[in-house]
Amino acid sequence: MTEFSLTEAIAVLSRTPATLNALLRGLPNIWVRCNEGKDTWSAFDIVGHLIVGERTDWMTRVRIILENGEARPFDPFDRLAQLKESQDKSLEQLLDEFARLRRDNLAALHALNLQHEDLTRRGRHPALGVVTLSELLATWAVHDLTHVHQLSRVMAHQYREAVGPWSVYLGVLRCEGHSDS
Amino acid sequence: MTEFSLTEAIAVLSRTPATLNALLRGLPNIWVRCNEGKDTWSAFDIVGHLIVGERTDWMTRVRIILENGEARPFDPFDRLAQLKESQDKSLEQLLDEFARLRRDNLAALHALNLQHEDLTRRGRHPALGVVTLSELLATWAVHDLTHVHQLSRVMAHQYREAVGPWSVYLGVLRCEGHSDS
Repeated sequence: MTEFSLTEAIAVLSRTPATLNALLRGLPNIWVRCNEGKDTWSAFDIVGHLIVGERTDWMTRVRIILENGEARPFDPFDRLAQLKESQDKSLEQLLDEFARLRRDNLAALHALNLQHEDLTRRGRHPALGVVTLSELLATWAVHDLTHVHQLSRVMAHQYREAVGPWSVYLGVLRCEGHSDS
Repeated sequence: MTEFSLTEAIAVLSRTPATLNALLRGLPNIWVRCNEGKDTWSAFDIVGHLIVGERTDWMTRVRIILENGEARPFDPFDRLAQLKESQDKSLEQLLDEFARLRRDNLAALHALNLQHEDLTRRGRHPALGVVTLSELLATWAVHDLTHVHQLSRVMAHQYREAVGPWSVYLGVLRCEGHSDS
């Protein structure tokens, strides 16, 4: 287990738009628009959710910590906002929008010129209580990974029957959907 | 749940090299060389494993089905071969090698000019018994997805402590490592 490093977290955050682009752009609809059943998300919904995070959550919370500390709790994250906001767009539009928002947010993060001692500054999560700036930034990166994890699972689900007896060897088909946050 | 389609399977298979490239190339060592503990795989090991599959497994098995049917069981897949074969290479070399092998294998698959009726042809897996060509090809694609799933989990594991109280919301941190096949 390792300590948080801003450089290492940014290395992940900066790669996610290109990763999703390579994985998803131009795929047939079966991989993009199908989900795992009622009230679950498709790849399309997941990219929409990442966009909402860029627009309303991550950098907003960074600024609240720097400006208000623990005095002002974060606003809750609307986990269903994308279901209405993205519905008239194409996957390709969502991928472009996510890439642009992420680039802008990483530029804004860079402009803050955070120093090592800033990483221990504290804020207040509405449900989790006191958190630090480094925990928020680490969570931003791991949140990307949790949705890459979910994407691979949602896609694999579409071929659950098609793989026949091999399903016993394919771990992703045994994943129980713990990654929809 | 959907039926197998060769076009749809190839859509996934052809994107995996660029996905891994976007996710991994140039990342700091913490994300590439760390694993989840004793006898588990790092991102580096996973790319090595995908290379072994391209070299020895998938297209070899396609040809065995087409040439020998059920009469000749597949050779078992050596799941640990990459641990010795990749050790002196860089991640960047592995990513290039995987991309080249996958491109060549998809060209060879295309050259077979498989018809719809070929997809039901049968072969024999050494442990699973009778399987069909479409099941093999579906498994090739889902095997890619299972390792994208594993990669995101192995990477997220490195920040298990760094995310602090947010760990309860990050599904990838609750995944129990069912995807190491």
